[in-house]
Amino acid sequence: MTQLTLIIGNKNYSSWSLRPWLLMKQFNLEFAEISISLYTPESRELLQKYSPSGQVPVLLHNNLKVWDSLAICEYLAETFTDIPLWTPDKAARALSRSISAEMHSGFQALRQNMPMNCRKKYPGRGFALGVQKDIDRITTIWQECRQKYGAGGKFLFGDFTIPDAMFAPVVLRFLTYGVQLNDIAQEYANAILSLPTVQNWITAAHNETAVISKYEF
Amino acid sequence: MTQLTLIIGNKNYSSWSLRPWLLMKQFNLEFAEISISLYTPESRELLQKYSPSGQVPVLLHNNLKVWDSLAICEYLAETFTDIPLWTPDKAARALSRSISAEMHSGFQALRQNMPMNCRKKYPGRGFALGVQKDIDRITTIWQECRQKYGAGGKFLFGDFTIPDAMFAPVVLRFLTYGVQLNDIAQEYANAILSLPTVQNWITAAHNETAVISKYEF
Repeated sequence: MTQLTLIIGNKNYSSWSLRPWLLMKQFNLEFAEISISLYTPESRELLQKYSPSGQVPVLLHNNLKVWDSLAICEYLAETFTDIPLWTPDKAARALSRSISAEMHSGFQALRQNMPMNCRKKYPGRGFALGVQKDIDRITTIWQECRQKYGAGGKFLFGDFTIPDAMFAPVVLRFLTYGVQLNDIAQEYANAILSLPTVQNWITAAHNETAVISKYEF
Repeated sequence: MTQLTLIIGNKNYSSWSLRPWLLMKQFNLEFAEISISLYTPESRELLQKYSPSGQVPVLLHNNLKVWDSLAICEYLAETFTDIPLWTPDKAARALSRSISAEMHSGFQALRQNMPMNCRKKYPGRGFALGVQKDIDRITTIWQECRQKYGAGGKFLFGDFTIPDAMFAPVVLRFLTYGVQLNDIAQEYANAILSLPTVQNWITAAHNETAVISKYEF
C-alpha cells in the first residue's frame, strides 16, 4: 500500500475532518496526518497548497488528492475492497448511503447553531429555530438503523462502518450542548464515545491551544 | 431489471430532483416518475409517504427506498455496473467524486441567493455576499476537469457522467441569473443546455403552473 496522508483541521472544531480520520483509525489504515490550524494568518496558504476546494479534509494517495469527507470514504471503499467500510448487505448499504448523504448535505440548523467544540460544555445552548427538528430526525435515523440492521454490534449497521464515521461529529455536538436523547440514541452515542479512537481525538482537541472565536459562545 | 421509480419535486424549482432524473435519462434507464408539487397543503403527506427524510428526490427499486441525489447516483452506479455512470479511469473518478461531493454539500451562498427557477430570467440579480466566490470556484472546477479529462467529449470527463448530473442545476441557475462565464465554462454550460433531456426538463418546468413564492424575486 502506498502511503496515505490525511490533511485535517483543528481537532477541537473540524467536524468534517473527524469523519475520514475516525474511519481510517477504526479500520487500521495507516496514514500520516497533516494538521492545519484554521482561521489563522498562515492557514490560507497551507490550504491552497493541499486543498483544491480550500477546505479540509483532503486525502493524499498515489499522487491523487481526494477531498470532501464523503468522497474520501467512497474512494477508500473503492480502493480497499477487502475491508468492509460499507456494510456488505446491499439493502443495508443503500440505507447507509442515503443517511450518509443526508448527513453530508443537511442539518444546517444544527450545524450552524451547535458547532463542534470538543473541549467545551454548553448545556442548553444552541437550540435555535429548526435545531430540535434536526436532532429528532437524526435520532430517528439512528433508531431505524439500530432496529433494522444493528443486531450484530453496537453501531448503526452492527459493526462500525462509514455512516458511523459520518455521524460521529454529531455525537460530539450532542455531548457539548447537553442534548437529551432517548435510550436507543443514547446507547448509540455511548458506543461512539467509548471508542478509544474517539477518546484519542478528544484528548488531542484538549491539547490544542488555538481558539476560533466564531465557534465559541 | 425491476421497475425503477423516481420521486421528484417541481421541475421548475427542484434542483436536487434534476440530478438523478437527468442521469437516468442520459443513460436510458427507464423509470416511472412521481411528481410532488412542493410547499402545498398536500405535499407534506405525499412526502411522508415516499420519503424518509421528507425531501426529494427518492428512488424506489426492489422494495428499497434510496434518497438524496448523491446516494441515488452511487446506488445506481453500484447496481448497474455495466453502465459507465462514473468515468472508468480511477484518478478521474477520484476527482469526479471529490467535485460531486463538494457540489453536494457546498456553495450555500449560491444556493440561497440564486434558487433554480427554469421559467425565469433575472439577469444581474442574486449576487449577494459570497456568490461570486462560489461561481468562481465552480468555473475553476469545470475548467480543470475539461482540461485534464474532457478531451473525449463535451462534458466534464468527456462523456456525460455523474458529476455532469450533479452540476447541471448550477448551469440552469447561471442561465436564469445571467452569470457571465469564461469561454471554457460557457462552452460546457452550452453542452449541458443543448441536451434534449435538459430541454425536455425545462419545457416541463414551463408547463407547470405552481409558483413557490420564496424562490421568486
